[in-house]
Amino acid sequence: VEGVHFLEGTDPARVAQKLLRVNLSDLAAMGAEPRGYWIGVQIQKEGAKAWLESFVLGLKADQEEFRISLMGGDTVATPGPIALSITAIGMVPKGSALLRSGAKPGDRLYVSGTIGDGALGLKVARGGLPGLSEAARDFLIDRLECPSPRLAIGQSLRGVASAAIDISDGLVADAGHMANASGVGLQIDAGQVPLSAAAQDALGKGSATIADLIAGGDDFELLFALPEGTDLPGGAETELTQIGFVEVGQGVAVTFEGRPVSLPKRGYTHL
Amino acid sequence: VEGVHFLEGTDPARVAQKLLRVNLSDLAAMGAEPRGYWIGVQIQKEGAKAWLESFVLGLKADQEEFRISLMGGDTVATPGPIALSITAIGMVPKGSALLRSGAKPGDRLYVSGTIGDGALGLKVARGGLPGLSEAARDFLIDRLECPSPRLAIGQSLRGVASAAIDISDGLVADAGHMANASGVGLQIDAGQVPLSAAAQDALGKGSATIADLIAGGDDFELLFALPEGTDLPGGAETELTQIGFVEVGQGVAVTFEGRPVSLPKRGYTHL
Repeated sequence: VEGVHFLEGTDPARVAQKLLRVNLSDLAAMGAEPRGYWIGVQIQKEGAKAWLESFVLGLKADQEEFRISLMGGDTVATPGPIALSITAIGMVPKGSALLRSGAKPGDRLYVSGTIGDGALGLKVARGGLPGLSEAARDFLIDRLECPSPRLAIGQSLRGVASAAIDISDGLVADAGHMANASGVGLQIDAGQVPLSAAAQDALGKGSATIADLIAGGDDFELLFALPEGTDLPGGAETELTQIGFVEVGQGVAVTFEGRPVSLPKRGYTHL
Repeated sequence: VEGVHFLEGTDPARVAQKLLRVNLSDLAAMGAEPRGYWIGVQIQKEGAKAWLESFVLGLKADQEEFRISLMGGDTVATPGPIALSITAIGMVPKGSALLRSGAKPGDRLYVSGTIGDGALGLKVARGGLPGLSEAARDFLIDRLECPSPRLAIGQSLRGVASAAIDISDGLVADAGHMANASGVGLQIDAGQVPLSAAAQDALGKGSATIADLIAGGDDFELLFALPEGTDLPGGAETELTQIGFVEVGQGVAVTFEGRPVSLPKRGYTHL
């Protein structure tokens, strides 16, 4: 929804890419290979043609990048903001889908890539973080607008990870979803959470806190649990970093340098 | 979209039923057996809980009626009107899906049920047609808010009909879609188009014209082409009525009592 999930004035091609990629990220988190998608578009008649022409260029680019096809959809007029939805389907070998519900006490907790860039990208898009270099600002905007669904990692985790989820609402919030679904507690060491150079810079300059980064949304990295004694799959397209453990209990406990971190914001709440 | 596809203040359970049924109607038109659906909901936070509680009751009733399951979805906040989308999937034996594109000159053209009730139901919902009986008005509202997807008819037409489409934008507009996809012309005799008692009453009282009925949308009946010498399938849950022919040419020609009917409105245009 324009103004809720993406800022007004965002390049429509980038909106298309993010829309598709956040859905592919959900498939990645289940270890699935994407097959196709359906799209629903609501837009005001005024200006629709130009907006949609740019929008479909973004879809086209990512259809090629991810080798998926548009299977159908619907476009309707609305008096409200532009609103877009995608239903994407993917395939896994029978019984091998990664779920949120399999984490067991003793498992190690990993994330892919770096955390917090999406939240910082939103600050930049809103005119914040003026102290960062232009390159850092561009990097963060790019992470916000064009996330990388971790499809190859997800597929390599089939039969390996005990649970997985993609980080869309924020690391801590999505860890909470895994903890609830698995009936376990998760222990996260914020000091181990991998950060990009841009995020480290923002942290060092005091324009963001570690809590902002681990509570902010829009990372679209994978969080997964790996049973003790299981090797990480090789050949991942990005770093995989251990950030904590699964334990008996419930909820998510975050520490930083040995002390509990209090998190005022528990991730994005939709309603 | 509230205010575009359904009137503000419509019972949310009925909105749910229509949303699901118009999608099942699309599956019916392809001869498919419904399997499941995904739903996307956009709603303002204010009042969302009560609205959604009623909405899911409608979904539940129709899930049971049509023996389908909710497979997933997403609910998000919007500052705009309530907007809903469903992606429904169904199955057909390989190669047997009914398409819009197979109509051949010489085929006969049929519709299921009665035509124009949805358009009249919209007039009633907006306070029109005061001269009709309460029973007729209720019937028309019901046809508008709770269409009957012709799933059994669609399935019985597999391997029988040469082309099929469901009538959502209006008989003439959807006939136009079939004509275009098939590369043929369609000849419709408006005098043969089946009308409900309520629609005949509205026509008789001069509160609607035959053009209103065949150009109005929201019928969710099937339009299909049957090759010459092919028998209609038996056991249909509603009448099947021949309304015309497929011919060499293009577009849709409508006659009434032997004269061409001019249609100022060519069906619902989305954008």
